[in-house]
Amino acid sequence: MPSAIARAEEFCARFGLRAPILQAPMASASPVALGMAVANAGGMAGLGALQMGPDEIAGWVQGFRAASNGAFQINLWAPDPPPIRDPDREAAARLALGELGPLPEPLGDGPFLPDFAAQCAAVLAARPPVVSTIMGLWEADFIAELKARGILWICNATTLAEARAAEAAGADAIIAQGAEAGGHRGSFTPEAAEAQLIGLFALIPRFADALSVPVIAAGGIMDGRGIAAALTLGASAVQLGTAFLRCPETALAPAWADGLAVAAPEDTVLTRAFSGRLARGIANDATRAFEGTAPAPYPLQRVLTTPMRAEATRQNDLSRMQAWAGQGAAMSRAEPAGEVVRRLWSEAQALLP
Amino acid sequence: MPSAIARAEEFCARFGLRAPILQAPMASASPVALGMAVANAGGMAGLGALQMGPDEIAGWVQGFRAASNGAFQINLWAPDPPPIRDPDREAAARLALGELGPLPEPLGDGPFLPDFAAQCAAVLAARPPVVSTIMGLWEADFIAELKARGILWICNATTLAEARAAEAAGADAIIAQGAEAGGHRGSFTPEAAEAQLIGLFALIPRFADALSVPVIAAGGIMDGRGIAAALTLGASAVQLGTAFLRCPETALAPAWADGLAVAAPEDTVLTRAFSGRLARGIANDATRAFEGTAPAPYPLQRVLTTPMRAEATRQNDLSRMQAWAGQGAAMSRAEPAGEVVRRLWSEAQALLP
Repeated sequence: MPSAIARAEEFCARFGLRAPILQAPMASASPVALGMAVANAGGMAGLGALQMGPDEIAGWVQGFRAASNGAFQINLWAPDPPPIRDPDREAAARLALGELGPLPEPLGDGPFLPDFAAQCAAVLAARPPVVSTIMGLWEADFIAELKARGILWICNATTLAEARAAEAAGADAIIAQGAEAGGHRGSFTPEAAEAQLIGLFALIPRFADALSVPVIAAGGIMDGRGIAAALTLGASAVQLGTAFLRCPETALAPAWADGLAVAAPEDTVLTRAFSGRLARGIANDATRAFEGTAPAPYPLQRVLTTPMRAEATRQNDLSRMQAWAGQGAAMSRAEPAGEVVRRLWSEAQALLP
Repeated sequence: MPSAIARAEEFCARFGLRAPILQAPMASASPVALGMAVANAGGMAGLGALQMGPDEIAGWVQGFRAASNGAFQINLWAPDPPPIRDPDREAAARLALGELGPLPEPLGDGPFLPDFAAQCAAVLAARPPVVSTIMGLWEADFIAELKARGILWICNATTLAEARAAEAAGADAIIAQGAEAGGHRGSFTPEAAEAQLIGLFALIPRFADALSVPVIAAGGIMDGRGIAAALTLGASAVQLGTAFLRCPETALAPAWADGLAVAAPEDTVLTRAFSGRLARGIANDATRAFEGTAPAPYPLQRVLTTPMRAEATRQNDLSRMQAWAGQGAAMSRAEPAGEVVRRLWSEAQALLP
């Protein structure tokens, strides 16, 4: 087994980095300004393209390339089957949300998401150095298209079974998403998410021992100690989301940024309240409203919560905001993203032999 | 901040160890043979005395001292208020358990636990080098008695608020119990346990930054990588439970030991099925039986499950066994406990600067 530093250096060489730090491709918080700062400091930028159309994807890539020649990943969610419609459940969710904000309109027939094939075509056309999936795998045909263009594929996994499926399908690296992580859980089976909450102390060595591709650790990693610990456990790199949220380049809603600074780990909660898929964020009135009421399934719940989320952002009101946060939120710092990359990697190297 | 190795060495000097490894004081699995092997290899032995009377406590200590002059801790649970009786809930739990084994007798008026004052007196009389609490603090008078005798006190905590309360009360070290850990969750408030599941990546640095006493990390630590990672995150020592369960000295029920060897992290579950307090173990028929049925509160549920647990052990039947396991269970090894201590500390040192 090579040393932690040697593994990280090998990863950096393969993925075109100077620091083994990936900025998580956060669908709600990955502006060009953040990505370019991360990439120009030697880390990997990330675009969460889940809710973007082809032109928006192309626009982000164009903006990024005008500002950086560093590495970046574009992330899409592997699509779920169409949601099963349940008028009673949707009505109950609408009523619960009407208590917190504008009463959502009844859902029509959709579509409720951007056209996935068009997104995939836009990703191929953009020729990013790296693409990533969460929630599952790409189709084999699309993986072949990626390989033909020399695009590397990173897949998020929450269990070894998911990681093995991704490796077998051709993934070039696997993200080990620990239970500590903020935002959506990447369980391949949506309903299994609550039963797949594995801490990084168990997950990283399990992946490292069983996989032949590099492991990227994600979840609760906030500083050089976390990076050094993840590499020591067997990871080759780390992916950080919450650690970048308070950076000025992210331009987060102020109440969300302030909430992160004071959020104890136990102030975060795993909830399906905002999208219908399980995710970790700061507990608030919106998450509590769905402790007793079943939300609609993904992506219907996301559509239903749009008016409340928009109003909360407009009013800078954390009590109803979709305020994703990992368990390490309070260790995040309001400093420029390039400084985060440089400081954390410098701290980590000082802790490793 | 001193280096990881320096912190560990300082801890070892204070607690009389040659390796910063504590054997968890597992109430169901801490025989003298295990403790002496751990202590003679330089770690700290642990006695889980929760269910032992004064004579049994004295007997364990006598047996240990005949075989080792090493360090050991005696652990008791801080007592809960008497459980609120609910005949309907107890009847439902009895019926559910009757499907799995002998129908439990109706509960009488108790007592349902050994006399706590007598246990405390036995602990003082034994003059162990270290005592520990889980589930809360000692009374101030008893802490004064410990201090007067030079007995060190370690307190288990699952949140920083609990850790701060313990430090203020005079704890000499704090165990940071991560969500990965097997066995009972140590939440000071029993009903809060499900909301206090913090992974070690977030918990260790949070404790290390805020406390002035040493932090002992527990949960999912199975080998030298885990120890080195925990120390890197800010811990001074580690406490291992599951890592010692398959040692021959522990003499575990064979089906439980075999189950550990193949338990994926997601095969473990947090359950109140066995005792009424939340604990992590291997998912089986008994844990599933209480997914829909509320168990009785602690310690009543423990009394009610006694016939089923006894029969399961007699029949070596994992499907109904109280098979505590941390998320790293499959990394455990069937090797002598002294070897575990020596191998793990040697591995960890090789990974630290």
